[in-house]
Amino acid sequence: MSAVESVRWSADGGAVDIIDQRLLPGALVRRELRTVDDVCDAILTLAVRGAPAIGVAGAMGLVVALAPHAHDDRERLLARATALGERIARVRPTAVNLSWAIDRLLRIARGIGGDAPAVLHALRREATAILDEDREMCRRIGEHGLALLGDGARVLTHCNAGALATGGIGTALAPVYLAVERGRRVAVFADETRPLLQGSRLTAWELSQAGIDVTVLADNMAASLMREGRVDLVIVGADRIAANGDVANKIGTYPLALAARHHGVPFYVAAPWSTFDLATASGHQIEIEHRGPDELGRGFEVPVQPRDVAVYNPAFDVTPAELVTAFITDRGVMRPPFRFDGARHARPSAV
Amino acid sequence: MSAVESVRWSADGGAVDIIDQRLLPGALVRRELRTVDDVCDAILTLAVRGAPAIGVAGAMGLVVALAPHAHDDRERLLARATALGERIARVRPTAVNLSWAIDRLLRIARGIGGDAPAVLHALRREATAILDEDREMCRRIGEHGLALLGDGARVLTHCNAGALATGGIGTALAPVYLAVERGRRVAVFADETRPLLQGSRLTAWELSQAGIDVTVLADNMAASLMREGRVDLVIVGADRIAANGDVANKIGTYPLALAARHHGVPFYVAAPWSTFDLATASGHQIEIEHRGPDELGRGFEVPVQPRDVAVYNPAFDVTPAELVTAFITDRGVMRPPFRFDGARHARPSAV
Repeated sequence: MSAVESVRWSADGGAVDIIDQRLLPGALVRRELRTVDDVCDAILTLAVRGAPAIGVAGAMGLVVALAPHAHDDRERLLARATALGERIARVRPTAVNLSWAIDRLLRIARGIGGDAPAVLHALRREATAILDEDREMCRRIGEHGLALLGDGARVLTHCNAGALATGGIGTALAPVYLAVERGRRVAVFADETRPLLQGSRLTAWELSQAGIDVTVLADNMAASLMREGRVDLVIVGADRIAANGDVANKIGTYPLALAARHHGVPFYVAAPWSTFDLATASGHQIEIEHRGPDELGRGFEVPVQPRDVAVYNPAFDVTPAELVTAFITDRGVMRPPFRFDGARHARPSAV
Repeated sequence: MSAVESVRWSADGGAVDIIDQRLLPGALVRRELRTVDDVCDAILTLAVRGAPAIGVAGAMGLVVALAPHAHDDRERLLARATALGERIARVRPTAVNLSWAIDRLLRIARGIGGDAPAVLHALRREATAILDEDREMCRRIGEHGLALLGDGARVLTHCNAGALATGGIGTALAPVYLAVERGRRVAVFADETRPLLQGSRLTAWELSQAGIDVTVLADNMAASLMREGRVDLVIVGADRIAANGDVANKIGTYPLALAARHHGVPFYVAAPWSTFDLATASGHQIEIEHRGPDELGRGFEVPVQPRDVAVYNPAFDVTPAELVTAFITDRGVMRPPFRFDGARHARPSAV
């Protein structure tokens, strides 16, 4: 079995076909997004999630939303594209990939000559290119990381940086998928990842769908697992990586890195080169999103907290560079400090 | 407001009056345990929990269960006490305090002269002594730990080692209750403590009942909180402390100690002297209870894991002595290696 496809064109090309991640792991339901409302709702409600997947789905969604307007004149179509694109980009403003992908489509729309059908054709081709590049990026991360996973490797991961978060085979999980594809035995430990449980709901699901050995644990159990000598390496994704190598990622990444360092377990961060943010000197400059108390208190059969108790609920944490063994990127495995050369403006990111 | 009383005699003396912890924090329901079935069921289903509280409730429960048999002859009463005591002790065999408390009552029963009413009277007096000693032990831990909590102290704790877990004001929370009682401002951060959420359900509840400032966080957020400089000290309880100072406690204690060490935050273990187990050289000799997968998978409105996925679910972890700043005990604040003198056989424990 291979990795699930979280975002793709529908068979008729008229819709974005996504896995509705809100229903996982209970049910595998694919949805066809055909209107701008469908697209915005799917992104807002986390039916599609993960920065790369959102960028891909947003770009493809803009194409789908514009498709019925092939009879517009050129200027009217461009105005419509701008308005719809802004609406989609606004749904999750902190997701850099979303506004980057929409901007990329709008630049194509304005730059290309011809009538509305010609513009629509170019936009569809560009959205497909974004999807293909995302798949290729994942595969390259996987190939660069492959050497780190010998036969029998036991990998610990956090949150979901897998196929469900990208158009391809994921970032942190890409080396796992490729190693298994090449016949190596790999066992994955998936932190459940409180409060939203992306690890137990999503990572465990997509790996078990692909027939890969996966074990769920509560976040607070990872250090004990390492102490028992049962983890060979940690691979996590990243939301943003500062110029000094500090890593902003889902809350709970940082204590994992501390535990890995303490036990001599290599701690790898797998991310596309676009995640490296030169404009940010270190993790201290990264503002962390804090989320509402309901995420911690709700969801069990009975209330799990007293009413009105205060909650500390940051969505991310910062792992200092000194705790990262190396970064697995689509350009290779690298260690800080990072050198940036002419290739830098090839970075597909607005940050 | 002061700490809740989790275990006490009912007003008529004919029952053990407990807070039903299964219903917290949604509802405060007190239950009167009047039969051996009541007592065993309450212990088995965690209506009463926490090693000291279980020991107290078990001893008081044996007295209550024997009370209707004042007309037995002496030998018949002793046989009944042995049978009922063994039944109660068997409900949670790993809870050392439970078998210790029952043994203590059975020794009294056999040692005392006189008829059944005289034996029953002695047993009631002894069970009351166990409750009083537990309260006194908590208060002494609190007094010894008091010097560590200045005005404005911000304390992080894990699981529930509070009034709900003891006959008194708890172990880890005892210094907090006493500091507040003396007019100091104390803020507590309570790890939710996956998988069973004793932190968010119980610690947050009992502290807010007492009017103490408490904030709940997911376990994986504690390291970030320390990195932000918002934790002055950590205080946790202990299930068992090895002779070298290694601490077995609720899973998640160990990564907390790692994070505390990394951030220069003092990490205190508060426990009665009875928790120190000389027969165990180090944490490596402590066998860790692993619990079922349902504890991680159930309880949210939808299943949070794929069916049949493997689960790593240890109930406790071991924190190496080197990560413990000091131990707050009923005999004072101390550091390993421990010296044991003649006072040793005063240890109220069978381990």
